[in-house]
Amino acid sequence: MLPVQLEDVQNAAERLRGQVRRTPVFRDDSQAQRGVTLWLKAENLQHIGAFKARGALHAVGRLPPRVRDRGLVTYSSGNHAQAVALAASRFGIRATIAMPTDAPAVKVARVRELGATIEFAGTTSSERKKRAEAIARETGATIIEPFDHPHIVAGAGTATLELVGEVRARTDGAGLDALVVPVGGGGLLAGACVVCAAAGIDVYTAEPHGCDAMAQSLAAGTRVAVQPAPTLGDGLKPVRVGALNFEVARHVVRDSHRVNDSEMGAGLVHVLTRHKMLLEPSGAAALAVAMREQLPDSPANVGVLLSGGNVDPSTVARLLQEHA
Amino acid sequence: MLPVQLEDVQNAAERLRGQVRRTPVFRDDSQAQRGVTLWLKAENLQHIGAFKARGALHAVGRLPPRVRDRGLVTYSSGNHAQAVALAASRFGIRATIAMPTDAPAVKVARVRELGATIEFAGTTSSERKKRAEAIARETGATIIEPFDHPHIVAGAGTATLELVGEVRARTDGAGLDALVVPVGGGGLLAGACVVCAAAGIDVYTAEPHGCDAMAQSLAAGTRVAVQPAPTLGDGLKPVRVGALNFEVARHVVRDSHRVNDSEMGAGLVHVLTRHKMLLEPSGAAALAVAMREQLPDSPANVGVLLSGGNVDPSTVARLLQEHA
Repeated sequence: MLPVQLEDVQNAAERLRGQVRRTPVFRDDSQAQRGVTLWLKAENLQHIGAFKARGALHAVGRLPPRVRDRGLVTYSSGNHAQAVALAASRFGIRATIAMPTDAPAVKVARVRELGATIEFAGTTSSERKKRAEAIARETGATIIEPFDHPHIVAGAGTATLELVGEVRARTDGAGLDALVVPVGGGGLLAGACVVCAAAGIDVYTAEPHGCDAMAQSLAAGTRVAVQPAPTLGDGLKPVRVGALNFEVARHVVRDSHRVNDSEMGAGLVHVLTRHKMLLEPSGAAALAVAMREQLPDSPANVGVLLSGGNVDPSTVARLLQEHA
Repeated sequence: MLPVQLEDVQNAAERLRGQVRRTPVFRDDSQAQRGVTLWLKAENLQHIGAFKARGALHAVGRLPPRVRDRGLVTYSSGNHAQAVALAASRFGIRATIAMPTDAPAVKVARVRELGATIEFAGTTSSERKKRAEAIARETGATIIEPFDHPHIVAGAGTATLELVGEVRARTDGAGLDALVVPVGGGGLLAGACVVCAAAGIDVYTAEPHGCDAMAQSLAAGTRVAVQPAPTLGDGLKPVRVGALNFEVARHVVRDSHRVNDSEMGAGLVHVLTRHKMLLEPSGAAALAVAMREQLPDSPANVGVLLSGGNVDPSTVARLLQEHA
């Protein structure tokens, strides 16, 4: 039995009602000639521009008020930092985020706008984590894990729950045959697996080449650490996937795929020009797989999680020049 | 009494149910320090990337089947061409679009993808219109006017109807105090005026400097033709606004505003970076006004129609470099 159940995701959806956006789903006919309709779940249009708002708001909402009122702390250089800052501001509590000293100014500014306190701590993930743990000990604040926690997974899973329900309604009950999910720490993937396992939908992963901690772990049958290679997909490069997330994924994922910078860039430009939405390169990884791969059993309806849209404008300008 | 009534817009909304997207509304707090919340209606996420799908689908749907089956014809270099092509493909009928010989390749390609036939006819609007009229005479096809028709206006008005209802729900009944609308031929404006007049919401216009046919007409009390100046807002430069649209607007519009290329560019970049959505420069004109003007009576909730997102990628790349 999976350590997170469909019922947990359904309960999370109930708790998150009105707190997160039910993001739109875009039908994409670019693969029609090979009989595939893509269904794009636009989590780039979620609060703070990424699906991370779901897990953080759910996890923080599940804390007992006495615990929650002592404040939150987390470590992140990316979207999870904004998600925790958002959750803290919604609950009117204090949040401290350990961020790298070389964090992009725009990310620092967004976290500050949401009212969180930033503590700069080195440049590596382990330095940030250590600082967050020290803050938690000193202040009694609760650490909100970025991806490896059942409440984070259940919250993230609500994106897939919405997608699956909407496609079923829009295809007269046929529904999705397969879903492609971008993988960093694996929280979004684990949530997707829980929903898809219950619905009989095949799950495929997308990771950047050289940042394939999940693919390597699935192949090895145990969690494997990688030295992440340079990639445009900066949201998809943890050293190691979550233990809980791996445990869920290894029972459900059908196959793993890898993408390169050029494919993510082309996916980003496709969504920008055809669907008028901005993705971050990580957010286009699953789409790149769905546009390239002939998946087994010829699925007619393939879901794609577009995970976020927080990207440096100069990167977008460059990708438009290269791919448009 | 206005020549188009609220009931006409409500009926159009009923007819369009399931045919157009109920586009999302984004709350924008960028003007919070002066006490203004902006509510952005994302018609760039509408089918074919612009609100024009609403008017065309409504107008074509209202044609008697015998008439409709003889085909459609229109003249447009822009979003209306795609909107009519979409409507024809939905109804399984033939459409011919008169387009300028210098139309951008991407616009020609999109119309062809939707299955319409293109007739190239000169470079001016009057040459295109003449060709369309000739085709209508020869084939019995019906001309679908780009903006000056009650069915087009009622269809376009459904965007405002959705916005007004959604903001009312999200503000515990307070609702919009004002709405800013971009104006080309004035169809979107006329539809907005019908809805806002009934709801007691002030309406303001946004036109590019030198393309202010509506502002000049409102000032003169009669329709005035302009020689449109060069502008980034290529969707907002007709020589003359629609007669019906002027008739509605002159009873309702509270004030007119003009924007320059730089303001539209900044608005485009704001929406791209903060809301993860792509606008065409025309689509950012009303936002530019809402971000700049202190409107009369200190409105707390200001609606903004983001009209479309069809823009050349190289323009986006340039604007990102200039404004991000």
